[in-house]
Amino acid sequence: MSLEHDFVVHTGAAGVVADGRHDLAVVVGPAGTTSALVMTRSRTAGPCVALSREARVGSVRGFVVLARNANVATGAQGYQDAVEIRDRVAALAGARADELIVCSTGVIGRRYPMESIRAHLDTLTWPGTATVDAAATAIMTTDTHPKVCRVEGDGFEVVGIAKGVGMIEPDMATMLSFVLTDAQIDPEDLDRVFRRVVEQTYNSVSIDTDTSTSDTALLLASGSAGTVDLDAFERALLEVCTTLVKDIASDGEGASTLITCTVTGATSAQQARTVGKAVINSPLVKTMVHGADPNWGRVVMAVGKCVDEPDITTEALSVSFGGVEVFPQDVDDSVLAGVQEHLRADEVEIGVDLGLGQESWTVYGCDLTEGYVRTNADYTT
Amino acid sequence: MSLEHDFVVHTGAAGVVADGRHDLAVVVGPAGTTSALVMTRSRTAGPCVALSREARVGSVRGFVVLARNANVATGAQGYQDAVEIRDRVAALAGARADELIVCSTGVIGRRYPMESIRAHLDTLTWPGTATVDAAATAIMTTDTHPKVCRVEGDGFEVVGIAKGVGMIEPDMATMLSFVLTDAQIDPEDLDRVFRRVVEQTYNSVSIDTDTSTSDTALLLASGSAGTVDLDAFERALLEVCTTLVKDIASDGEGASTLITCTVTGATSAQQARTVGKAVINSPLVKTMVHGADPNWGRVVMAVGKCVDEPDITTEALSVSFGGVEVFPQDVDDSVLAGVQEHLRADEVEIGVDLGLGQESWTVYGCDLTEGYVRTNADYTT
Repeated sequence: MSLEHDFVVHTGAAGVVADGRHDLAVVVGPAGTTSALVMTRSRTAGPCVALSREARVGSVRGFVVLARNANVATGAQGYQDAVEIRDRVAALAGARADELIVCSTGVIGRRYPMESIRAHLDTLTWPGTATVDAAATAIMTTDTHPKVCRVEGDGFEVVGIAKGVGMIEPDMATMLSFVLTDAQIDPEDLDRVFRRVVEQTYNSVSIDTDTSTSDTALLLASGSAGTVDLDAFERALLEVCTTLVKDIASDGEGASTLITCTVTGATSAQQARTVGKAVINSPLVKTMVHGADPNWGRVVMAVGKCVDEPDITTEALSVSFGGVEVFPQDVDDSVLAGVQEHLRADEVEIGVDLGLGQESWTVYGCDLTEGYVRTNADYTT
Repeated sequence: MSLEHDFVVHTGAAGVVADGRHDLAVVVGPAGTTSALVMTRSRTAGPCVALSREARVGSVRGFVVLARNANVATGAQGYQDAVEIRDRVAALAGARADELIVCSTGVIGRRYPMESIRAHLDTLTWPGTATVDAAATAIMTTDTHPKVCRVEGDGFEVVGIAKGVGMIEPDMATMLSFVLTDAQIDPEDLDRVFRRVVEQTYNSVSIDTDTSTSDTALLLASGSAGTVDLDAFERALLEVCTTLVKDIASDGEGASTLITCTVTGATSAQQARTVGKAVINSPLVKTMVHGADPNWGRVVMAVGKCVDEPDITTEALSVSFGGVEVFPQDVDDSVLAGVQEHLRADEVEIGVDLGLGQESWTVYGCDLTEGYVRTNADYTT
């Protein structure tokens, strides 16, 4: 594929954690690559996010990822470390420094092991010969598998990679996600399309309500496939990002079930998303799914938490599990058995109709399990 | 005590759940009792909350509690059931119907077992001879112990009872809390003082970010102790409510640790509370405390979630555990051992200084454990 020719990939073991795992990934597109970039709104975002904000809007060509150390709350020194890594990689790849961004996720509050990273950069030869799939593996932290999605458009290709796991309720972007395409699209169009897709995907997923300090979503378009139909491109991009987001949700820390909540009958898309987020973020809904218990009262409760939506009422509301209405319609035992069966599946659909208007939205989340508690009670020191 | 003479208490097994446990409590003060009442803002609040909103503002004399059934999402029939119970108890107690409120907590979406409740009311004699402590026991759902707090003022007494457990992030009130006093205070003063105290106590606690559909806090003042110093009364009330809220937090579903987070150096009390809530509601902070792991980076992350507080920066921030600064000051191993020891205690203090102003706020929460997941995955059907 031309896309794999366009983007040069390197991965390696830079010793971020000294276990020999690949934890450095570099992807760089050709000169003339256009870009769209969305990053976290966190008030304690890290130096890498600050540095990436200085990159050339619309003409970023590539990115460097260091996995398993967030480089957050590391002060001026952490910023300087990120600059040094970016500048060395840019020199190797023949790119301008402000055409690269640096992204990191992992433990907060520790400096990079710069000696080990410098030793790796000393031996790095360019062009790298790794694949996009290898990059997807190198950016993992506690993900159980790499997250990659490819979609063939009419004369172009879109490939996305992401990492997720925990601390996932992105606010303007996701943990880390990178999407590559060979389509030729000018930066203004790319930005507009990407933000629309980000709203429907990365900004509609939550694992645990916690927002990372490192969230970054980057879209790079190399242009070698020539101009494309923008609507067709947006559909392909939406398919890639939706697939990645569902993968992130079902691979949430300790998660055993992907929860999709579609809210219909809303007066606005924003209202529908607010309600959907309240449902998938409710610990009582999440544990209900984990227990495969059709306790729909908890969904009613979660909807009620949207106190700034004064037109919502219990009377206009209906709730369904797997397309089967459970409220207000009474459910007899044979129907209930089917609903319970659905709640035991790997993917559970919760439907909420507000009975107020015509707008809708879908959000993605996962169940809350003993595994989430164990993973996060044991993490770090 | 005069207070125990003023308020007549009845408890009994009304068969809300057919296991013989006392699950009905009635408390009624003398004619002339003044009151202050704060209830949930939930958009799916139950019929009992709707009915209580019709009570006589400032001169409610008493309350009826049915435990282990929320009577929520039960429609017009659920409202009628609550009216019937209220009217029968009012007739027995010689009160006007609109001088009583009805409160319920428990499973959502089931009607009261009215036959069994009527049978109990048929045998109920008045005045009841139960104690306030018995009422605290009768209102429990999955609480592990009754929650009662008494404070002796100068010439007056304040007694509060509460239930908590799960679905606890009250919005304008708490799950169920009732405070009695023999002080004589006019309804306007009572309301003003109570709302101020509710902000600092019930509206500053969270078990799991879920907001009940039944939250109600009621303060009844019988007046037999005569007029009192209002400031002294507010101090006593704050002590009672703070004690109950800490009891609710440490008895959260599955909880093993009470977390107190005090935010200082804020530009406003509201900003301090917003940050405090973000910290105690973070699943990653809650599991960090459960694992006794001084991973302060998660506190920095949680502070960063307050995206609508643009003046917050990592640079101005400091974090402490048990009064020992862990960020930005580097902690050596001997200090770290002490911090870990503190995190293993029954009560953990997280301090956040925003370095911006002079305002502060304290919020209360608990850790997130496998027990919370198990309890709520298994609840109900």
